[in-house]
Amino acid sequence: MKFLKYLLIFIPISFVAEFLHASPTIMFVLAALSIVPLAGVMGEGTEEISFYSGPKIGGFLNGTFGNATELIISFFALRQGLFEVVKSSIAGAVIGNILLVLGASMLAGGLKYKTQSFNKKVVEVSSSMLLFAVVGLCVPALFTHTVDPSLLNTRYEGLSIVVAVIMLIIYVLSLVFSFFTHKDIYSVNLEEEGSANPKWSLKKAILVLIIATVLIAIESEFLVSGIESVTKSLGLSEFFVGIIIIPIIGNAAEHSTGVIMAMKNKMDVALEIAIGSSLQIILFVAPILIFISLIFTPMSIVFNEFELIALIVAVFIANRVSNDGESNWLEGVQLLAVYFIIAASFFIL
Amino acid sequence: MKFLKYLLIFIPISFVAEFLHASPTIMFVLAALSIVPLAGVMGEGTEEISFYSGPKIGGFLNGTFGNATELIISFFALRQGLFEVVKSSIAGAVIGNILLVLGASMLAGGLKYKTQSFNKKVVEVSSSMLLFAVVGLCVPALFTHTVDPSLLNTRYEGLSIVVAVIMLIIYVLSLVFSFFTHKDIYSVNLEEEGSANPKWSLKKAILVLIIATVLIAIESEFLVSGIESVTKSLGLSEFFVGIIIIPIIGNAAEHSTGVIMAMKNKMDVALEIAIGSSLQIILFVAPILIFISLIFTPMSIVFNEFELIALIVAVFIANRVSNDGESNWLEGVQLLAVYFIIAASFFIL
Amino acid sequence: MKFLKYLLIFIPISFVAEFLHASPTIMFVLAALSIVPLAGVMGEGTEEISFYSGPKIGGFLNGTFGNATELIISFFALRQGLFEVVKSSIAGAVIGNILLVLGASMLAGGLKYKTQSFNKKVVEVSSSMLLFAVVGLCVPALFTHTVDPSLLNTRYEGLSIVVAVIMLIIYVLSLVFSFFTHKDIYSVNLEEEGSANPKWSLKKAILVLIIATVLIAIESEFLVSGIESVTKSLGLSEFFVGIIIIPIIGNAAEHSTGVIMAMKNKMDVALEIAIGSSLQIILFVAPILIFISLIFTPMSIVFNEFELIALIVAVFIANRVSNDGESNWLEGVQLLAVYFIIAASFFIL
Repeated sequence: MKFLKYLLIFIPISFVAEFLHASPTIMFVLAALSIVPLAGVMGEGTEEISFYSGPKIGGFLNGTFGNATELIISFFALRQGLFEVVKSSIAGAVIGNILLVLGASMLAGGLKYKTQSFNKKVVEVSSSMLLFAVVGLCVPALFTHTVDPSLLNTRYEGLSIVVAVIMLIIYVLSLVFSFFTHKDIYSVNLEEEGSANPKWSLKKAILVLIIATVLIAIESEFLVSGIESVTKSLGLSEFFVGIIIIPIIGNAAEHSTGVIMAMKNKMDVALEIAIGSSLQIILFVAPILIFISLIFTPMSIVFNEFELIALIVAVFIANRVSNDGESNWLEGVQLLAVYFIIAASFFIL
Repeated sequence: MKFLKYLLIFIPISFVAEFLHASPTIMFVLAALSIVPLAGVMGEGTEEISFYSGPKIGGFLNGTFGNATELIISFFALRQGLFEVVKSSIAGAVIGNILLVLGASMLAGGLKYKTQSFNKKVVEVSSSMLLFAVVGLCVPALFTHTVDPSLLNTRYEGLSIVVAVIMLIIYVLSLVFSFFTHKDIYSVNLEEEGSANPKWSLKKAILVLIIATVLIAIESEFLVSGIESVTKSLGLSEFFVGIIIIPIIGNAAEHSTGVIMAMKNKMDVALEIAIGSSLQIILFVAPILIFISLIFTPMSIVFNEFELIALIVAVFIANRVSNDGESNWLEGVQLLAVYFIIAASFFIL
Repeated sequence: MKFLKYLLIFIPISFVAEFLHASPTIMFVLAALSIVPLAGVMGEGTEEISFYSGPKIGGFLNGTFGNATELIISFFALRQGLFEVVKSSIAGAVIGNILLVLGASMLAGGLKYKTQSFNKKVVEVSSSMLLFAVVGLCVPALFTHTVDPSLLNTRYEGLSIVVAVIMLIIYVLSLVFSFFTHKDIYSVNLEEEGSANPKWSLKKAILVLIIATVLIAIESEFLVSGIESVTKSLGLSEFFVGIIIIPIIGNAAEHSTGVIMAMKNKMDVALEIAIGSSLQIILFVAPILIFISLIFTPMSIVFNEFELIALIVAVFIANRVSNDGESNWLEGVQLLAVYFIIAASFFIL
């Protein structure tokens, strides 16, 4: 985590570069390097505030602002009409969380501890929610791939809004479930983590959050403006940028937390970060982006075959992994291997 | 259940309407409203007879006559050559049972009891049978979607008959399994339910069953004759009628039983109704329909992509849900959400 | 097992037939009948050597030479450019192991013992490895089926080599896992089997292995030369020969061992043969074949839709079956039913 903070130096560098009219590709790289630590600061700020707000509102804040970086980047991408980037970054965030973060966590933890156990019950609730959420999100795409697409563009939008509304309702209900009706399932985890004291004053925490948000917004604009140039100069597809690179930028801070937790043998927390974060992407970020897109050009939630396959693969693996309540280094290697094969396929094709 | 009996009034109303040459759409609605309580009466009659026949033959009767309504409706649809309606109603019955009935049961039960447990072992036998059965049923369709369909129509029929014969053999063997070689697995359930006494005499039960069958046959003919008119006047596709509306009509009685059982905290029975009924559709109703179709025009068992997706989704969710031996209201909401997204997709597309 | 040894008589018969210029179809049949017992002798020889080498190197030898027959047959098929046969025999070996061998084992064992238990933990490690391996192997195919194939032939080869390298790395790491870091998980099985003494001297074992390898190589050449003639004269597709017939020839010895172990109530061993052998095919045989193909014409690892479906179905069923730690005769029947439906589809289409 501390290592990431040194990257904050890239914020002033990116400002100077913008002032000197650096090429969009350089701006893309500098913005990426700046967003990584800013997302970390944002997460820290949200956690500090939740010390003052109590666990319920705190849990809600963590859940809702935990993906603020993805939301902000996607907002600017939507404004520029980069629908492919936005949609593939949703799928990319899920496979990044399930395959890359979880794989790295299980490998790092498994090299230190022979077998790591986790609370099967909590993880099963999350992983089965993830199954339902991904199925719900993919059903329209699965159906529409079998119908002539030219006929039905306006209908897709209607269907996308229906799905978005249902997803948001489930999101709210899942908060009711975990903070009210079934909060005892999660009590073990909360206790473990809740023992620390706040490091910052409430005023400082809010200020940090505001500054981080503003800076992420500025850097996101640099980043998005550079995407077209990057795809051309480096020969990458928009799709590869969306599904592999942007999710890594937006989630690097979370990723490192997952790995650190696994190395402390807190596999429950590592799994909760990976699966919980995927759930928030599908149930909260994706619907919000559909609603935001109505301001600019309506975006339909129809994923392409590549994204569908990646999402479905990630979900089945998450369910399989959570099934036995244990992990080891070989499982971590296998998750990473699937991620690299997917990334290589995207890269080569 | 009692509420449904008031709907029996629609039987005489439908006869009067037929006499007055009412429009086919009105006849469709009246027939639908008549079939719902008749299916319930039929189920009740079968259960009464099984008190006299002993549990083994009773279980067989329940299993085999439990889907008589679907069979009769499909018989008339087959006679009219409405293959699409028949095939989509098979898929629709499965997703209706797994997503709608089970979702409603888990929601209703979960609002009353925080967590409901069920016998994991029994449910795993059923849900893994369902996986095999759906895989078997879908394999021909999965293969044939990748081959030029115009070439192979006659071959499909041969393959459909092979699959139908295998399904029926498995059906008979599954009865041998549950009533002879492994009947002890199911003993807990049987005891619980078997404590009641018959309400009717055997003579009355047989008479009721015969009258209900005749009335269902008449109303099914009204219903099927109205399908074409309904699809035109209400702008619905034949496909939507088959996959959503007909299964709801044929299963409404079973659905309400599932919900009532869940509210009595008998989640085992609710699950057995949902999964067991799906199994009977695939292993018994579907093959019988293929054989019946040989009398009229041979129907191949090749599902379209929509039906395949719906079937596969339903099966994976059934397996996931049965895996942890527990249910809660949020799981119920999620099952219902997936059902509504599927229904909305069918409706809009 | 003993019954199979009588088939060794077909080796001299095939030599005489070759000398008399018998038709390629007859040579195919004679070679097939010769390879079945030779594969069994080869397995026996490897096991004998592992008595002298100690369990670690022995385990490695068993794992690596266990599929020598498939490798040799595929080598000659590759040399003749029969890519379709080679690829479909990889998929066919997996479904043969999971559906046919495991189904037959569960049925045979289940007819003798009401319920057979196995060590859930060991089987879950294997079956979840199988999930990852199949996903990794299928991802390139899943992606490439959605891209215009004419454009990308050279890219496929690059991707196939990447996948092959990753698979081999995982294979080596899985040996490290089972023989070094987590060998205690497997200790129960090893003890049970390790009690016997070698029947042969080391010298005899090595000699038998060399002779068997040479004979298998000769018979494989007869077999492969006959494939074209068999497909024409019997009206079978190359695909059917690859996916159904060749895996049965190459694995008959292993199959009979699985069934015998199940009948001795050693369900752990039967499952380990079926799932472990599938793993070796994917992680070891498939990559080696890709590398060998570079000598002749590079073969891409892009499976067709039929093979993908068969592989994915087999993997989900293996995961489902291993999930409850128990088996019975009905489960065996269902696995066999799925296999027969797949075989019938391949045969008819």
